[in-house]
Amino acid sequence: MRVLAAFLPIFLTAATSTESLEVRAEPAQLAAWVEGLAVHGSDENGTSRVAYTEADIAGRRYVQEQMQSLGLEVRTDAAGNLVGRRAGRDPDAAVILFGSHTDTVPEGGNYDGVAGVVAGLEVIRLLNAAGHTTEHPLELIVFQNEEGGLLGSKGLVGMLGSEELATVSQSGHTIAEGIRRLGGNPDALGQPIYAPRDVAAFVELHIEQGRRLVDTDIAIGIVQGIVGIHWFEIIVDGDANHAGTTPMAGRRDALVTAAKIIQQVQAIGTDTPGTQVATVGRIRAEPGAPNVIPGRVVMSLEIRDLELGIMQQVRETIENAAQRIAKADGTGVTFRANEATQHSPAPTDERMREIIEDAADRLGYASVRLPSMAGHDTQSLESLAPTGMIFVPSQGGYSHSPRELTTAEDLARGADVLLQSILQIDAGALNR
Amino acid sequence: MRVLAAFLPIFLTAATSTESLEVRAEPAQLAAWVEGLAVHGSDENGTSRVAYTEADIAGRRYVQEQMQSLGLEVRTDAAGNLVGRRAGRDPDAAVILFGSHTDTVPEGGNYDGVAGVVAGLEVIRLLNAAGHTTEHPLELIVFQNEEGGLLGSKGLVGMLGSEELATVSQSGHTIAEGIRRLGGNPDALGQPIYAPRDVAAFVELHIEQGRRLVDTDIAIGIVQGIVGIHWFEIIVDGDANHAGTTPMAGRRDALVTAAKIIQQVQAIGTDTPGTQVATVGRIRAEPGAPNVIPGRVVMSLEIRDLELGIMQQVRETIENAAQRIAKADGTGVTFRANEATQHSPAPTDERMREIIEDAADRLGYASVRLPSMAGHDTQSLESLAPTGMIFVPSQGGYSHSPRELTTAEDLARGADVLLQSILQIDAGALNR
Repeated sequence: MRVLAAFLPIFLTAATSTESLEVRAEPAQLAAWVEGLAVHGSDENGTSRVAYTEADIAGRRYVQEQMQSLGLEVRTDAAGNLVGRRAGRDPDAAVILFGSHTDTVPEGGNYDGVAGVVAGLEVIRLLNAAGHTTEHPLELIVFQNEEGGLLGSKGLVGMLGSEELATVSQSGHTIAEGIRRLGGNPDALGQPIYAPRDVAAFVELHIEQGRRLVDTDIAIGIVQGIVGIHWFEIIVDGDANHAGTTPMAGRRDALVTAAKIIQQVQAIGTDTPGTQVATVGRIRAEPGAPNVIPGRVVMSLEIRDLELGIMQQVRETIENAAQRIAKADGTGVTFRANEATQHSPAPTDERMREIIEDAADRLGYASVRLPSMAGHDTQSLESLAPTGMIFVPSQGGYSHSPRELTTAEDLARGADVLLQSILQIDAGALNR
Repeated sequence: MRVLAAFLPIFLTAATSTESLEVRAEPAQLAAWVEGLAVHGSDENGTSRVAYTEADIAGRRYVQEQMQSLGLEVRTDAAGNLVGRRAGRDPDAAVILFGSHTDTVPEGGNYDGVAGVVAGLEVIRLLNAAGHTTEHPLELIVFQNEEGGLLGSKGLVGMLGSEELATVSQSGHTIAEGIRRLGGNPDALGQPIYAPRDVAAFVELHIEQGRRLVDTDIAIGIVQGIVGIHWFEIIVDGDANHAGTTPMAGRRDALVTAAKIIQQVQAIGTDTPGTQVATVGRIRAEPGAPNVIPGRVVMSLEIRDLELGIMQQVRETIENAAQRIAKADGTGVTFRANEATQHSPAPTDERMREIIEDAADRLGYASVRLPSMAGHDTQSLESLAPTGMIFVPSQGGYSHSPRELTTAEDLARGADVLLQSILQIDAGALNR
C-alpha cells in the first residue's frame, strides 16, 4: 500500500497540473484573521501574547477554531505546538509543513508571527474553495514560544533539553509548565517529533522586520538563510582613580579606550563589504561614579551575518583594532565569546529558494533574495527538512512594536506565493 | 594654677622672636599618632572610620585623649566637630584655627585627614616643649564627616540646612543623629558657630592625593585653592532598533555618538592649556541589551578647575563638539547641569600662600604652588577667615585606598611648615 501510494501521484499530477491553481488570496479575509487574533492581549500599549499567558492561550484557541472551521484535524504536539492537518491523497507521503507563531514580545505588534499563521489559514481556505486535494498531507503549525527562544520548534526537532525546560519563562511559568498549559507533554521531548522522512519541506512566511522590501517596493523576499549570531564580552582594563587629583596626561581611562573601540565596531561593521551587522548594545563602566576615572569597562559585541567566514573576519578585524587602541592607550582589552549565544548561520535550501522565486515570478510579484537578520523557527527545522522562508514587507521596518504593519495586500501576495510554493513542492519540484 | 600657666609664657616669648622657633617635628611621634588612630576601624581591607560609626567615635576619642594629655581644653561644638583649645596671651584675640578630619571612606587609608590632625597635635607638642605661648588662642579642630560632604565644616559656618541634616549618611544614621552621637547639637546649627572677627585664619595640612609632589620630589605644596566641581548629565538620543534587522547604514546609534563625545571630553580636557580635568565616569545605554541598538545614552561629565572661566570654556567647547558630532550622526544631544554638584572654585588667601611659602623657604623645604583637585573642609571656611592649605606628598598618589602613604619624614616637614606658618600669623603676618 505504502509503495503503491508513493507512486500513484505521478499519474494524477501529470493529468491535473497541481503545480498551480488560478486562485488568489483575499486581503479582507487575511485582515479579518489578523483582527481576530489582535483582540487577544491587546491594549493601548500594544499586543502582549507572551507565551503561556492567558492571552497566548486565547490566541491559540482562536486559531484552533479557525483551523477546525476550515476542516483541519487539530492536535497539540508534545512540544506544545498547535498543528492543523489536511490529509493528502497519499496518506503515507511526507508532510508539507508550514506556519509560524502567535506569541508576541510584551507590548509587541500584530504581524510578527501572525502573518505566517493567517497566510497558512488562507492557503487552506483557497485549497478548500478550489476543491483541491494535495498529494502530500499539509500541516499548518503554530509554534509555541518563538519569542522566548524558538522553544516550540526546538522541541519539534528534539533540541529542547531538561535544563531549558526548567528555565522560568517571561510568563513566570517554567518552559515545562508552559508546555503543559498549552496541552503538550514535556516528558516526551527527548527525541524529534518527526523523523526526516516524515517531512517533505518546511516553509515559513514572516514579516521582514526591516525596511529593505518596503523601501525598494518589492513584494516578496526570498530568505537566503538566517544569520548566525555571535555574542562577545569586551573587557577593557585601565586604572580606576580620583577624577580630580589624576591629571589628564597620567590617566589610563578604560572608558576612553572603550569609546574608541565602539567607533571601530561601527566603522568595521559598516566598511566590510557585505550585509553583516556589528553592535555594542550594552556597556558598564566600573566603578561608575562621576568622580572616578573608569578602571574597567565591560561591553557587549554582537556580530551577525549569513557567512560564518565573514563573521569571523569581522570579529578578528575588530579585535585587532581594539588591541592596537588599548596598546596605544596603555590599557588592556580582552574578548570573551558568550557561549550561550553562538548561533551559526542557517542557510535555507537552494531548491526551496528557487521554488519560491519561481512562484513569485509566475504570479508577477517582484522578489529579491535577502538574509534574515533575525532568528526564526525555520532555523530549528534546518536539520529536519529542506527549509524555505518568504518575507513580506514591514511598513517602516518596525518589529516588536505596536507600530508593526504589513498591509493586507502585501499579506495576500505573500499567501499567494506560499500557496503556489506548496503546490510546486507537492508536485515534486524538490526532486527535479 | 591654670591662669598662671597661661600667662607665664608671655615673658618667655616676648624675649624671643615669636615668628619662628628653632624646633622641628619628630617623625617618630607623628608615626606613633598615625598608628594610634589606625587601630580604630582597620582590618585586612583597609581602614573604615565612616562618620558616626563606632570606629569613627573611637578614633575621635583617641584624638581627644591626645589633646587632653597635651593640655588642650577640649570641647565638641554644635556641629559635632572636636576642638582642642590652647589659650593665647590675649584672651580676646581671634583664634588661629587649624586641623582636618579623622573620618574615612569605607576601606580607606590612614593619612587622608589624619595627616592634618597629627600635624596639629605635633604643633601643640612642640609649642609645649618650647614653653611658648602664642598671642592668639590656638584651636586644633577635627571636622566631623568630611568624606560625606564636608558636613562638620559646613555646620561650622552655618551652611548645614535642615534638609541635609535629615539625609541618611553612609553609617545609616541621619546627619542630625550622627551629630548627636558625636556630642553635637544639630538644633543649634541655624547660624555660624564663629563670627568672622573670632577667627584670624584657618590652615589645613592634608596629603596631596595626587603624584605631583612625590614625582617632582618637592616636600611642600602651597594650595592655590580648591577646584570648582561642575557635574553634568549628557543625554544622547538616537533610535533604539533591532541590532539584526537594522543595516549599519540606517542606524542612529546613541552609543556611537556618545563614544565620539567621550573622546572629545578626553581631548578637550587634555589639550586646553591649564590644569583642568574633565571626566566621563558613569555611562548607561538604553535599553541595554546586546541585540538592541542603543536608543539613548545617559552619561556623566565632571569638570574641575581653579578658574571658573576655564571650567565654563571647557564645558562650552565640549558641548559645541558634542552638538557637531550629534548633528553629523543624526542623533540629538542635551547637556543638563547637575544642580547638586555645582561647586565654585574656592581660592585660598594670597597672604596665607605667601606665609606658607616663606615658612617653607626658611625651613629649606622645596615648595610649589598647586591647586587642590579634590574638595576639603578649607573651602567651607573661605567665607569665615583667610584660609591656607599645605599639601604633603602622597606616595604613589593613592587616596581613598589602603595604599595611602605619606612618610613620617614628609609628615614632619609638613608639621614644621604648619607650626612656622601659625607663628607668623600669630606675629601679625596677615596684617602686613
